Amino acid sequence: MKADIGVYGLSVMGGNLARNIAGRGFQTAVYTRSAERLRMFSDAYAGKDSNLIPCADPAKFCKALSVPRKILIMVKAGEAVDTVIGNLLPHLSRGDILIDGGNSLYTDTARRADELENSGIHFVGMGVSGGEEGALNGPSLMPGTSPEVWKQLKNILLAIAAKAPDGTPCCKPLGFPAAGHFVKMVHNGIEYADMQLIAEAWMILKNIPEVSDVPSIFRKWNSGVLESYLIEITARILEKKDPETGRPLVDLILDKAGQKGTGLWTSFAALELGVPATGITESVFVRMLSGLKEQRLRGSEILGAGELGTLSGITADDVEKALYASKICAYSQGFSMFSAANDQLEWELKPGEIASLWRGGCIIRAAFLNEIMDSFAENPNEENLIFQPVFSEKLCSCIGSWRKVVSAAIGAGIPIPVLSSQLSYYDSMRTAVLPANLIQAQRDCFGAHTYERIDKPGEFFHTDWLD
Amino acid sequence: MKADIGVYGLSVMGGNLARNIAGRGFQTAVYTRSAERLRMFSDAYAGKDSNLIPCADPAKFCKALSVPRKILIMVKAGEAVDTVIGNLLPHLSRGDILIDGGNSLYTDTARRADELENSGIHFVGMGVSGGEEGALNGPSLMPGTSPEVWKQLKNILLAIAAKAPDGTPCCKPLGFPAAGHFVKMVHNGIEYADMQLIAEAWMILKNIPEVSDVPSIFRKWNSGVLESYLIEITARILEKKDPETGRPLVDLILDKAGQKGTGLWTSFAALELGVPATGITESVFVRMLSGLKEQRLRGSEILGAGELGTLSGITADDVEKALYASKICAYSQGFSMFSAANDQLEWELKPGEIASLWRGGCIIRAAFLNEIMDSFAENPNEENLIFQPVFSEKLCSCIGSWRKVVSAAIGAGIPIPVLSSQLSYYDSMRTAVLPANLIQAQRDCFGAHTYERIDKPGEFFHTDWLD
Repeated sequence: MKADIGVYGLSVMGGNLARNIAGRGFQTAVYTRSAERLRMFSDAYAGKDSNLIPCADPAKFCKALSVPRKILIMVKAGEAVDTVIGNLLPHLSRGDILIDGGNSLYTDTARRADELENSGIHFVGMGVSGGEEGALNGPSLMPGTSPEVWKQLKNILLAIAAKAPDGTPCCKPLGFPAAGHFVKMVHNGIEYADMQLIAEAWMILKNIPEVSDVPSIFRKWNSGVLESYLIEITARILEKKDPETGRPLVDLILDKAGQKGTGLWTSFAALELGVPATGITESVFVRMLSGLKEQRLRGSEILGAGELGTLSGITADDVEKALYASKICAYSQGFSMFSAANDQLEWELKPGEIASLWRGGCIIRAAFLNEIMDSFAENPNEENLIFQPVFSEKLCSCIGSWRKVVSAAIGAGIPIPVLSSQLSYYDSMRTAVLPANLIQAQRDCFGAHTYERIDKPGEFFHTDWLD
Repeated sequence: MKADIGVYGLSVMGGNLARNIAGRGFQTAVYTRSAERLRMFSDAYAGKDSNLIPCADPAKFCKALSVPRKILIMVKAGEAVDTVIGNLLPHLSRGDILIDGGNSLYTDTARRADELENSGIHFVGMGVSGGEEGALNGPSLMPGTSPEVWKQLKNILLAIAAKAPDGTPCCKPLGFPAAGHFVKMVHNGIEYADMQLIAEAWMILKNIPEVSDVPSIFRKWNSGVLESYLIEITARILEKKDPETGRPLVDLILDKAGQKGTGLWTSFAALELGVPATGITESVFVRMLSGLKEQRLRGSEILGAGELGTLSGITADDVEKALYASKICAYSQGFSMFSAANDQLEWELKPGEIASLWRGGCIIRAAFLNEIMDSFAENPNEENLIFQPVFSEKLCSCIGSWRKVVSAAIGAGIPIPVLSSQLSYYDSMRTAVLPANLIQAQRDCFGAHTYERIDKPGEFFHTDWLD
């Protein structure tokens, strides 16, 4: 009997996905370049009745698969993906399906899909979220497939995907090959903003004199509007004690945040698409700032860090509202990238469906995504999430606290790049007349760039401003 | 007699530069693709004793030049530059020098320089700032040249460049071919931030009940620490009346700000180099936000724009200090890109020299640049401008007003993305311990990304946070 699907690459993610697929009853051929790793994986997991079929080389691997072949490639994003495609191609037939489940850059995926189209091979870029544990037990899956290719994949993908709290599998076909990696990239960008907002809220809470038990506040928040995986793990993290010193472990961690590039890509894509994703981009920049530890230590001496003011007049409830409102704006900016991609790349991303498939398995899973999903079910063509009635109402009810929290943090000298950036975004979006008219006048003055008027038609008005 | 230099391309910028060069006594061959335009230019400017030598085709143009040839290419950035190089190449000899004076992307310039090296042609990417008027009477010039090539160009370039108020020509060799366009790009990025900061300050001033004559405040600022071309033209712009209606003309301009891409490139480069250029990037995003006019009009209804609060407790002097402090931080971020380029691209940009050559001719010319220049003369290796004693002192004396202004604007609902972003940058740079330790804990919790500790060496600590 031929295998239903093959998994190429047995790192932790690939190995766990293979075990997940086999565990759902699908015959799963597996191959990886390292004979040593293949043997170890086989010894550990590929006993009889495991549904796992180790293969010794790409030719045998492809031969083991039923036609049309379905191959999930799980290798490091970048050149390795092209190498693997090159290794497989001689053994494939027209109509076969290659799925790249790594964190590839979506423009690379578009290029690969175009190149493979000539060989009659379908290429699917698939976002996979949920880390090692999700890969094994149920990830959120974002496959970039057409409806025809989806028909051939859906049995397997729906079976292995995470389930949302209402039981819906977290997997939807996204129409075009590169769309899967694009959606995963935006997911990660939103994740950057979400994490940074939580970090800023934490720093504020620590500096409110009336707040004594910060972890308990995060626990409480996790049963309110902020209910989410990230809030839940934050509570657990803040409670964790270092076994050696008895101190909160988080306080012993160096404050330099790493990044692996998908947040950066989201900022690039936002700039390219012309979407003002300010919160995501500030979050990317904050990680860079965190890395400038030596400069910050100098700055703390030169610029008087000892003079942190105290936070007065705000409560933990105000901080919750500020965090929630900022989160709505961060998601709004991310979701605006989907509208922009639909316009500029001629995709057909459905924001409500994307919210739906992030409800389980992935890092930003949250009760809040149900509301996004429901709001787009009612108003599928709304171009900005903050104008969905459910969210504009919430924003209006949070705005007083949000302003108080941002002002208090600014008064106290606490850096809040994303809380304040999202507030400026909110205020920009409610300002009918921005001071951009002055900028247009300046550009016309020094560069004869011309301007439009509000009182008559025409695009190319010019004035000699200095005569 | 052969010509000293040739100018290829006679658009307004190219034509004015040719006239500037010829006017300084250099024999200047000129050519452009359009015979019509060449004829018009010749008729208008190339009389006898003009030093201008119109040439009918690239072969005659190259033949007219003394060897080694020096050719200034002034065509639209992008493919046209490659086409022109291709047209010229058959007529050049080893040792000739091509100078691209357009707004080319610096990575394109690096590629072109590499390609031309094989032919023994020197390629110089040169930033030119100052618009049409500067091109004719004295632009700021940023040539990316080695010392050897500089020797051959300096007579001409120093003669045509703008002069700083102290008489120094605004032109320095920047060492490497792509460095000229890189420095010009950062100049433009800083210009975006500077203009947006002025726009935000203007919106705040308009909403302070005690302030009645806003243009006079800009006039006053122009004789203080903010003295600069942009402040000067802002005062003039705000005073300008529409002849038809008698209203301030700026109020009749549509508030959608355009952009031509160099600000966007600066943000890309900052992200790539890992420099937190938050103010420049927020300024780029604001231009995109300004373009979402229809969304903002909806937002002004849905999100209650009528409810702008009043600004209380701040004066125009506070706004001046907030603007000045923000400007220091915006320049600091731009200048950090030079350090990053030196580290990562192995350039040898000297920040003090760059400040010096921006003092005349270009849009961001300002008294302030003298102080930057002087500060780097004293501390040439300071990695962050805000730590130069002259600026850290100014920041500390402005910080109270800056916090008041940002808080007041936030309370009143005035969008101030760059004033607040620069303040968060300042506060981040003076914070010894950022909440990035929580982000590292989260990353380790969901992705086993590991962390460093502050109390022991090692990079790969991992904790099972949820056990």
